[in-house]
Amino acid sequence: MKTVKDYIRTIADFPHEGIMFRDVTTLFADPRGFRMAIDQLLHPYAGARIDKVVGLEARGFILGGAIAHQLTVGFVPIRKKGKLPGATISQAYKLEYGEAVMEIHDDALKPGEKVLIVDDLLATGGTCEAGIKLVQRLGAEVVGCTFIVDLPELGGRRLLERQGVPVNVLCEFDGA
Amino acid sequence: MKTVKDYIRTIADFPHEGIMFRDVTTLFADPRGFRMAIDQLLHPYAGARIDKVVGLEARGFILGGAIAHQLTVGFVPIRKKGKLPGATISQAYKLEYGEAVMEIHDDALKPGEKVLIVDDLLATGGTCEAGIKLVQRLGAEVVGCTFIVDLPELGGRRLLERQGVPVNVLCEFDGA
Repeated sequence: MKTVKDYIRTIADFPHEGIMFRDVTTLFADPRGFRMAIDQLLHPYAGARIDKVVGLEARGFILGGAIAHQLTVGFVPIRKKGKLPGATISQAYKLEYGEAVMEIHDDALKPGEKVLIVDDLLATGGTCEAGIKLVQRLGAEVVGCTFIVDLPELGGRRLLERQGVPVNVLCEFDGA
Repeated sequence: MKTVKDYIRTIADFPHEGIMFRDVTTLFADPRGFRMAIDQLLHPYAGARIDKVVGLEARGFILGGAIAHQLTVGFVPIRKKGKLPGATISQAYKLEYGEAVMEIHDDALKPGEKVLIVDDLLATGGTCEAGIKLVQRLGAEVVGCTFIVDLPELGGRRLLERQGVPVNVLCEFDGA
């Protein structure tokens, strides 16, 4: 039987030359692939208390929506600057060139809530690190970050684990 | 018991002055609200054949991911121009000022597949109409479009129904 990794296609030179882009849309489009991915993203947390699922824009929304529904808990988006309509707090993080800003509604999480953060791919970990800080600044606790793909050479997993956050990944690819 | 509509918050003057923005993030963040929304988005299609769920960027990803997982079918994103990594077909549609372009991977749907299109809000229907065209251009069939909110004064529902596509909405708000 095909594994989750087998459903992921690689597209060379997207979004710019030299990048091997790991495209999860072929995984999402396959009924067995998508089912397996959602189930496996959740396996480490069986029996754990999770109050909210946080998804990182935009592919983390697809996974986070499915996971929140599976658990019958609420879903909270973390979005790029300017997209959320209500009052927000924001967190900058570094990109290869320059920086970007992620935001969360300032009333989206309550102090003490247990949060699972979901995204499709862990690269340098910068986006997810910003997400962890936003969750913690609202007084909630990140019980884990769960990803489909890890690119181990980019060191994102070490970055997140150094902050005491357990990381779950379904598969790894070499290279950036 | 609160209805789906009761969980939606209204934010004045977002994204610009004069707009009453219907913010579904408060619905998504509530465990009962989110569960009810996903269940009710699907009720009209009980027993119907659905092969793929198509979600419109970006809030349609949250709902579409949950619905595809519930049905154990594949999920296909329709995104703004330039976001999808593989070969795409594109469809322009009119905005208040100017136009925008939506894209779908050209291999994401097979001829004859039955598709449910999902988004959070139906306003003028322009984005969803572009989505319907993209699905149909790949030879697939739209069995329905399902939304949480309809703004009836903007006429989107009539626009979509004139194309023979059944529309399901969970609640309505007056005004744009």
